[in-house]
Amino acid sequence: MVGILGKASGVSRGVAVMDFILRIVALIATLASAIAMGTTDESLPFFTQFIRFRAQYDDLPMFTFFVVANAIVSAYLVLSLAISVFHIIRSHAQNSRVVLIFLDTAMLALLTAGASAAAAIVYLAHKGNTRTNWFAICQQFNSFCERTSGSLIGSFGGMVVFVLLILLSAITLSRR
Amino acid sequence: MVGILGKASGVSRGVAVMDFILRIVALIATLASAIAMGTTDESLPFFTQFIRFRAQYDDLPMFTFFVVANAIVSAYLVLSLAISVFHIIRSHAQNSRVVLIFLDTAMLALLTAGASAAAAIVYLAHKGNTRTNWFAICQQFNSFCERTSGSLIGSFGGMVVFVLLILLSAITLSRR
Repeated sequence: MVGILGKASGVSRGVAVMDFILRIVALIATLASAIAMGTTDESLPFFTQFIRFRAQYDDLPMFTFFVVANAIVSAYLVLSLAISVFHIIRSHAQNSRVVLIFLDTAMLALLTAGASAAAAIVYLAHKGNTRTNWFAICQQFNSFCERTSGSLIGSFGGMVVFVLLILLSAITLSRR
Repeated sequence: MVGILGKASGVSRGVAVMDFILRIVALIATLASAIAMGTTDESLPFFTQFIRFRAQYDDLPMFTFFVVANAIVSAYLVLSLAISVFHIIRSHAQNSRVVLIFLDTAMLALLTAGASAAAAIVYLAHKGNTRTNWFAICQQFNSFCERTSGSLIGSFGGMVVFVLLILLSAITLSRR
């Protein structure tokens, strides 16, 4: 099959397979991020200064946005696997690749927005800000902070994969 | 010239001209954002509760990141105008378009990260958060808040333009 369609097609198919694998990597990363942040919902009780604190991800709207963004991107990645398989079978498809670049770009923006907003809050939680009197809360909410900080990793990894995916699609389009 | 190279080339050239115009629009938007946020540096003295407050953009590291991100993206857009002109002249160029898609994608991610981190802080400044005891500061720093909120508009506009730029490049590559 590859022999009939020639070398260019073989390269396209190789890129399409890599696209498929990268999408699965991104799916695992974003899904792990969403779950890691989303399950900080489980009560983490602390006893500090005679008050029982309970830290949940949805105490901060940016964390909620982070979970929603990662969930949407994960759902999109599952759906896009179908298009990726279609590209492995029909390596000459053009229009579907353009659509994929557009959707990938939109999802990259959504994922970056979620990760960055959450990162801003995680930074504040760790360092606080004296000028605005926003105090660091990580002394009290230690494991909450660790959990939310860790969940950012998947999202930032997913961003890198998305940039690679867009680059791969562009290379395939130019190599036609 | 267009007649010799045919209709497809004419379309490519039209898209290349649109690319050039969109880059100038994005440049104006991101530069305006950077300047609007960066000049909140000018002292804005308030007298509240017998204390003189001074709000600057670099009181918050996310605002500094916002200015830096917008400045980098603006500088990139100026440089990319040269490639855009090259595409108007040589509408069949392929590799340079792939490079442009890659760089545009990276810049979109940077711009989104800056805008989103700043937006998270602006949201906190307006609404505050009771669970973490981060109080809204916009009652005191009214014009500081207005300025920083307004400067986000350019960045978010720039993001939309970048998505369009990547889409245009992808369409041109597929239409070869």
